[in-house]
Amino acid sequence: MIRDWVELNMTPGVGPRAAAKLLERFGSAEAVYSATRSELEQLRLLPETVDTIIARALQLRAEIEIANARKLNADVLILDDGVYPALLQEIYDPPIVLYVMGAWAECLDQPCIAIVGSRKSSTYGQNAALMLARDLAQRGVTIISGFARGIDAAAHRGALEAGGRTIAVLGTGVDRIYPRDHKKLVDDILKNRGAIVTQFPLGTPPVSENFPYRNRIISGLSLGTVVVEAAENSGSLITARLAMEQNREVFAVPGNITSRNSFGTNYLIKGAGAKLVQQWQDVASELPPQIAASLLPPPFGDHKRAKSLPEKLAFMPEGLPGCETAVLRLLSPDNPAHIDALVEKSRLSISDVTAALLALEMRELIRALPGKCFVRKM
Amino acid sequence: MIRDWVELNMTPGVGPRAAAKLLERFGSAEAVYSATRSELEQLRLLPETVDTIIARALQLRAEIEIANARKLNADVLILDDGVYPALLQEIYDPPIVLYVMGAWAECLDQPCIAIVGSRKSSTYGQNAALMLARDLAQRGVTIISGFARGIDAAAHRGALEAGGRTIAVLGTGVDRIYPRDHKKLVDDILKNRGAIVTQFPLGTPPVSENFPYRNRIISGLSLGTVVVEAAENSGSLITARLAMEQNREVFAVPGNITSRNSFGTNYLIKGAGAKLVQQWQDVASELPPQIAASLLPPPFGDHKRAKSLPEKLAFMPEGLPGCETAVLRLLSPDNPAHIDALVEKSRLSISDVTAALLALEMRELIRALPGKCFVRKM
Repeated sequence: MIRDWVELNMTPGVGPRAAAKLLERFGSAEAVYSATRSELEQLRLLPETVDTIIARALQLRAEIEIANARKLNADVLILDDGVYPALLQEIYDPPIVLYVMGAWAECLDQPCIAIVGSRKSSTYGQNAALMLARDLAQRGVTIISGFARGIDAAAHRGALEAGGRTIAVLGTGVDRIYPRDHKKLVDDILKNRGAIVTQFPLGTPPVSENFPYRNRIISGLSLGTVVVEAAENSGSLITARLAMEQNREVFAVPGNITSRNSFGTNYLIKGAGAKLVQQWQDVASELPPQIAASLLPPPFGDHKRAKSLPEKLAFMPEGLPGCETAVLRLLSPDNPAHIDALVEKSRLSISDVTAALLALEMRELIRALPGKCFVRKM
Repeated sequence: MIRDWVELNMTPGVGPRAAAKLLERFGSAEAVYSATRSELEQLRLLPETVDTIIARALQLRAEIEIANARKLNADVLILDDGVYPALLQEIYDPPIVLYVMGAWAECLDQPCIAIVGSRKSSTYGQNAALMLARDLAQRGVTIISGFARGIDAAAHRGALEAGGRTIAVLGTGVDRIYPRDHKKLVDDILKNRGAIVTQFPLGTPPVSENFPYRNRIISGLSLGTVVVEAAENSGSLITARLAMEQNREVFAVPGNITSRNSFGTNYLIKGAGAKLVQQWQDVASELPPQIAASLLPPPFGDHKRAKSLPEKLAFMPEGLPGCETAVLRLLSPDNPAHIDALVEKSRLSISDVTAALLALEMRELIRALPGKCFVRKM
């Protein structure tokens, strides 16, 4: 009975916490509507919430709501319908109803990454968001964001630039696009096989207390959340915190310590365990191994066909400086070589070898082991 | 016998590695000069190095060197003279001789932090170096750097601005100041009770292969090294690597991912375990507890006198927004409070409580525990 869920979701006072309490106690929307007043009162809901449920005051409005959603080509998903987004269902307080438009099922079939940040963002932040979204979307990642001005919009646009998929999670009803000048952005998202998702009934206007609820959907739909710019007290930091509580990866793009916009992202890296992102690979490499492998290119240059191990070992990336080539030739993937041995065999100075090793490590061609030993990566 | 050490240090082919080998085998400079040719040859030194040692070809030059150093008001320290810098002595390949000028002993009595970075630095990097050096020097930290243009010079200048101490570690002889237009900077450093340190004999010109040796002295004299800006293959990254090998703290200042100058520092944070630095406290808090305690102010506002625990608990920092004050009042340092309890007791919305908790955590007033619980920091 979709209608019961929609009715419950429209009931004043039934936010994520109350909904979670009701479901924990009764198991389904149908069961909530079979409950007695005293059973409901035990849950410490607002009195008007109990009244509304007992009176079934919104039953008719829920039916009209479903019909109106269909007219707008929106689907209505409910928590246990079998198509509800699996990652979102795992969180502590999933929305009991989702209004979705566009190619939402195909978007959610791809790995999903959220890219969020300040509304008041710098050119740097917008460029970084655009670049990361574009590079990830190009490789088949769905970019999820909150449709706000600034970083969110740049993330959606980056995905569109790459011809990729993107999901806009709204803090309003699907019929109340906000900000209004983003109307064209919605059209572009839907035209490009993207989607729109919200938990809020039709006609819900933009009110600030709804946006944190939207944030938990953004992180909840995603394997990980990348925060691009965030000032000290921004909503993006709350999204990052929610992602952590949902056991999802949290990433942050660093920025100049003199920029207010980067204070929050630098803090997330310094104090909250967020992974620093310099480029899209830094996101991909932290995802579950199978997904990471599908996104990341094989470690060496041209890979039209798989190389055998001896071929790989003979392979030298083009354009390496002489010292680096000399040191790389001395390294194998199996036997760690000590730096002193490398100095001796290469006949280079210790400083040249140290510099070459560092450069090779940064190119991700070798790995440093404890005790000044090194191996080649395969 | 200082002379023997100075003589050995002046011998061609006796770099840090050869010196370490000689001392491991013979124990002192005197013993090296008592060794037989075949004993020396077993160490695989260069033939001319063995010839020079056996012939004692530099004995007279070493005597003149010591006299000339005295004329310049430079002290000559040797590895086991009892005043040689203790932290530097701990490293794998300490210089066997140090030429020092100025108030080196007082400088080394304070906690020492290295601040280094690119010669080709941005205005952002120079400002960040200046600010960190100033803030640390003001609190009694000696700032060590490599006297190069760019970040190094900004670090020295920041310490001077604060009226603090700074040590310039040279890659040349003390009589061959380089770059030449830094002559005034040397004068200012010495005038401000700072010091100059080098392992290179008088007259040693600036040659690029000497600079990595200087880098290990910079990190070796310091409790930790802060890298402010570094491009992909810069010497500052080598200094950071050396500091790690010396088991010293490594810090890096993040920057925009679109800036070449910050590529290396962001990489150090992302891939090499460097601690992210937003402000001087981030450096201080990672130092040994006694030193950290001497630098860091007590955690709450005005501390002319120590507060009792009840006073501390009643104390509310000024200027906190209402929600944060309300939430902070509900937290104790002993009993973790769950976020749901805070929502209930504060009568604030969950989103306001979440935002307040995050803000309080960033102000370092509270600590988040697993399972959405929080305690107040004391």
